[in-house]
Parts: sequence; C-alpha cells; structure tokens
Amino acid sequence: MRIEYDVVKETVKKALLNAGLSEEQAETCATVHSQSNADGIESHGLNRVPRFVEYVQRGWVDPKAKPELVLAKGAVENYDGNLGIGITNAIYCADRAVELAKAHGIGCVALKNTTHWMRGGTYAWRMAEAGYMGMSWTNTESCMPLWGSDEPGVGNNPFCIAIPREDGPIVLDMAMSQYAYGKLGVYRLAGKELPYPGGFDKDGNLTSDPGAIEDSKRILPTGYWKGSGMAIVLDLAAALMANGKSGADLDEENQGSCTGCCQIFIAYDPYLFGSKDEIQTMLNKRVDAADSSHPEKEGGKVTCPGERTMDVRKASMENGVQVDDQIWAQVKAIADGNLDVIDIASK
Amino acid sequence: MRIEYDVVKETVKKALLNAGLSEEQAETCATVHSQSNADGIESHGLNRVPRFVEYVQRGWVDPKAKPELVLAKGAVENYDGNLGIGITNAIYCADRAVELAKAHGIGCVALKNTTHWMRGGTYAWRMAEAGYMGMSWTNTESCMPLWGSDEPGVGNNPFCIAIPREDGPIVLDMAMSQYAYGKLGVYRLAGKELPYPGGFDKDGNLTSDPGAIEDSKRILPTGYWKGSGMAIVLDLAAALMANGKSGADLDEENQGSCTGCCQIFIAYDPYLFGSKDEIQTMLNKRVDAADSSHPEKEGGKVTCPGERTMDVRKASMENGVQVDDQIWAQVKAIADGNLDVIDIASK
Repeated sequence: MRIEYDVVKETVKKALLNAGLSEEQAETCATVHSQSNADGIESHGLNRVPRFVEYVQRGWVDPKAKPELVLAKGAVENYDGNLGIGITNAIYCADRAVELAKAHGIGCVALKNTTHWMRGGTYAWRMAEAGYMGMSWTNTESCMPLWGSDEPGVGNNPFCIAIPREDGPIVLDMAMSQYAYGKLGVYRLAGKELPYPGGFDKDGNLTSDPGAIEDSKRILPTGYWKGSGMAIVLDLAAALMANGKSGADLDEENQGSCTGCCQIFIAYDPYLFGSKDEIQTMLNKRVDAADSSHPEKEGGKVTCPGERTMDVRKASMENGVQVDDQIWAQVKAIADGNLDVIDIASK
Repeated sequence: MRIEYDVVKETVKKALLNAGLSEEQAETCATVHSQSNADGIESHGLNRVPRFVEYVQRGWVDPKAKPELVLAKGAVENYDGNLGIGITNAIYCADRAVELAKAHGIGCVALKNTTHWMRGGTYAWRMAEAGYMGMSWTNTESCMPLWGSDEPGVGNNPFCIAIPREDGPIVLDMAMSQYAYGKLGVYRLAGKELPYPGGFDKDGNLTSDPGAIEDSKRILPTGYWKGSGMAIVLDLAAALMANGKSGADLDEENQGSCTGCCQIFIAYDPYLFGSKDEIQTMLNKRVDAADSSHPEKEGGKVTCPGERTMDVRKASMENGVQVDDQIWAQVKAIADGNLDVIDIASK
C-alpha cells in the first residue's frame, strides 16, 4: 500500500523512540528508512526497522555509543563505531570524509566496529548531495559462496559510487550477489522465476528458481567469479583500511548481520581540476549519450543508475510511499509500544 | 608454445626499440608485456605488442611525450599524459600515488589524455608490491551495450584493487564485461561454447555461442545490469576526477582503444592504524578462511584472486612463458625490423 511520506517517517520515528533512541537519532534514522522506501528500496528501508529494534534489544546495537576518533593521518581518519547505530555512525563518517576532501582534495574515513548501515547507497548519495563524489563500501558476514564453493564463504559486501550532478546524481549501489535473498523471497511468494539465473540448486545446477536457491544457500555472485573476487577484496580492503574485523571475524562472532563490521567512506572534490561548468557539461554529455543508446526493445529506455530512483522518489512524494502491508503493521505496532511483535529468535 | 622469460622480454624489447621507444621505455614496456604473459594474461601481454607498434606508427601514441603535472591539491595530483606511452604514464602515476600516500595516508593521481595501459592489474600489483593498497581504473571507448540497449554504449572499464600481503598480494583485476572479446575468439576458434552465457545473439536471446555474440556485438555486462551500471559510473568518475575525456568523447574521436582516456590511481598506507603484524595476521586469517571453503566439486580448490596468478607466474619462470604462435612470429618479425607485418588497417 502507499502511505504519505510524513506519516511513514513519523511512525518509524515513534517506533525508534520506543526502541530507546534519542529524539535526534530517531529523527535521522526514521528519515533514512523512509527515504529508502521512497526511493523504492523497501528491502533496506522499513523492512529493516523491526530487525533493527530487535538488535537494540539484544544489545547488538548500542544507541548510547558514539563514533570515536582512533587516529588521523593527513587525509584519512579512523573511527571506532563502538557498535553504535549503523546509520548515525555512517552519516557521521561520510560527513567527515567530505570535510577531509575540502582540505586535502580527497578524504577517507575508515570506520570499524560499526553496525548495519541499512541502504548502502545512502552515504554515497549524501556525499553527492553535499557536492562531492562519494565512494563507500562495507564488509559483512558470509552469506554467499565464493566461486567454486558450495557453502557461504564471503559477504555480498555492497559497493557504492555517487557522481554529483546538478540534474540528479548518478549512483551505483551494488551488492556482490546477483540477487538479494530478499528479492528471492519476493519472487518465490509471487510464484515467479527470476529473470536470470540467481544461484545453484542443491545439485549444483544453475537455476532461476528462487526457492531452490534459498534451500541450497548457493546464491550467485554478480558475474560469477567476478563478484566473488570483488567481494573478498572489498572485505580485505575494508578491514585493512579500518584496522577492524574481516568477514571471517564477523562469522565467528555471529551476532546478526554486519554487527562489528568495517565501512569505508571516500569523498573527492569534483572541481579540483576543472570548473563546475566544464565538469557538469562533461557529465551531462556522457549521461545523455548513454541514455540515448538504442533500446533493445521498441519503446524501451536506457538510463544510468540513479536516474530511475529520482522518478520513483518523485512518485512517492506525490502519491505516497510504497510499504509492505505486513511490515507496516509491525512498524505501527512498535510505534504503539507493542515491542513484543518482534521475533527475537529471527535474524 | 613456451619460451624462456628472458628471451620473450628481450624480443619484445627489440620490437619496441624498432618502434621508436627509448632504451628505458622499451625495457619498462617489454617487462610489463612479458610479465603479463608470465602471469597468464596473454590478451594484454604480447598480444598487444603489434597493435601498440601500430598505434605509435599512426601517431596515436607519442613516445616522446611525458606525463606533465597540471595541478596538485593536498593528497591529489592531476597529470596530462600528453598521449604518451600508456604503460610508462601509468607506472609514473601509480608511483606518485604511493608517494602521496606516504605523506597523506591516502594518495590519488588522476591522469588524463593517456593511452592504453595494457593489463589493468599491472598498476595495482605494483602499488601492492611497493607495500601499499592500490586501487585503479580506466575509462575506455564504448565496446559493450548498456543494460537495455542493443548497441555498444559504454566501455568495459577495468577496475582493480590490490591488497598487499607478505604471502602474495590479493588482486582484483576485473573488466565490466563478462568475457573479453579476445576470450570469445579463443572459444570460437576452439569450437567451444562459453562456460556461461556471455552475451545476446542478433535476436536478443542470451547465448553461450561466442560467434553469435561477436556478430551481434552484444557482449554481456558482468552481472547484467550491475556491470552496466558500474561501467558507466567508473567512466564518469575517471573523467570527473581527472578533468578529462569521458567514453562519449573517446567514441567521437575514434582513434583506437583508450587513446586519450583517463585513469585513476589511489594508494593507501596499510599500516596507518594497525601494526604490520596485526594487519598481516588479519589478512591471512581472512584469506585462509576463504581458501578453506568447501569446494563444490570433490578435489576442487577455492582461491582468492591473485593466488592462482602466483602459481602461473612460478610455472612460467620455471618452464617458459606461454605465447601464441602467431603473435610470437609477429613480435619476432618486428624485433627483426620487419614492421610491415603490422596490419595498419586493423584496430
């Protein structure tokens, strides 16, 4: 169903206040969750609110914790997230990366011991909206087999790059699995096959049957061996840069998704070497050339990543934000103080 | 066939001297081309030597040009490659990125107006061998349809990350197409199907038939829409950071592969926040966990990217470097002064 944006946000905010967040934390997190839904990313928007509240109740997320500067050198800062709220930790660090880029041309913040940042693209979008090119990624616990293996061995470690553009940023927000588990469930419940193979069944055959992949836990890396390789390298890079935990460490601790993970935020001043006019003209020319590619299907439309998001956002603001009925009922119940709707046994 | 490494390198060097390179340039480029073959990357090793000589003869690569500092700010430097030799330009910039990282923790060099850097991984490997984490990518002319299009609209823009590790670096070297055109030709000539679908045929059906993909020019982005999105964002990012040409500009100029492109080199000091012991222990633990994943096939072996490369390199040094017979004959002919073997009409 569709619900007016302000109603969604206020309801999520009440839920988060009931979970023990401060006014400011609840406002920030409710905004990010609601904007994710408004942008069409329900999987990491409202769908995550009950689980986030569960994590707070379990003590896996500590709303009292703040990001703490460990060390700084030149254009780089290292923070300990102290298992605080993933969203507020990540926003803090993305904003610091922008400040560092103002001083050094490029700025990098390496955050360790943080928690799930929800929608990965949030922070690259934020840097782009501040006028900077943004790059960010996180490591996670293992949820995907490495190429050549039949058991989960690496996280699907999302990688994001946002290009600031006056006509709307171009934003890559890409997990290293071809499909998210959430997407498999959506297709299975609808009785549909995936558009393209999304994993292997228990017999090792490539399949588009979402249920068979959920059963085998053999979700497919993006581009087969390529996404597998990129996932492990992003994991190593995040842990190295932040002097924090790798996916292997997270697997051992087994405290829910992303608890204790590392995240990297890199900002770059887009007008270091070219004028704003020059750079924006180049970006527009490149995007226009891409968008005017001949479509494979008559009437089809080719777009760059982020462009459709802007359309979805506009429609959400005009017609209301799409929310899943069941999730909305849960979030409303938490907002009404009924925290027992949370299935503490679920992950 | 296999040829002793030193013979390969000296032969390539003679060919490059005949093409008009200086002693130092020929030594450097011959080493990179020969090491690429030694690492099993023939496509961007010796296979590119005749084309490189052709580009020099056409004036698309200027061996007299040197990278020139345009501007610097903090941890970032911008160079104009002046259409000099891609390999020597890129090595210069990768080394500068490492120097900047020594001073600022992170260092970034944005290079514009350069030429084909050959094997993309060369520069990330180099930064890792210097003890730094390296990240690099390039933009290129359009050779791959964007998702939803049936005509080439974006480059396959390789992206590389190298993690320095005492037991051997872990190195991602990943183009944004599922298979290189060179690989399609190898399968077609061998009369084989691709292991996984690699593109669309002329009727828009996903296919593993390499010849059908060569005919349609509809090579598949890595991970379908994902590689398409990442390719366009890497293109925009490279052109923005270096204040240089985008893939759309390169398409207009149409002067061979990568002529005038932008390349980005980012280096990061791995021991900024952790001791060498801590970081190396973390990396080894993560790599060991990945490598000990249960193999899908009995006797199979799971590895992280770069690990197999080290094995191939070792075998090449012991048993000789694998070279294609026809390419080797061409390179030897150029080394012998017969530059007319180069097909100036080919691209």
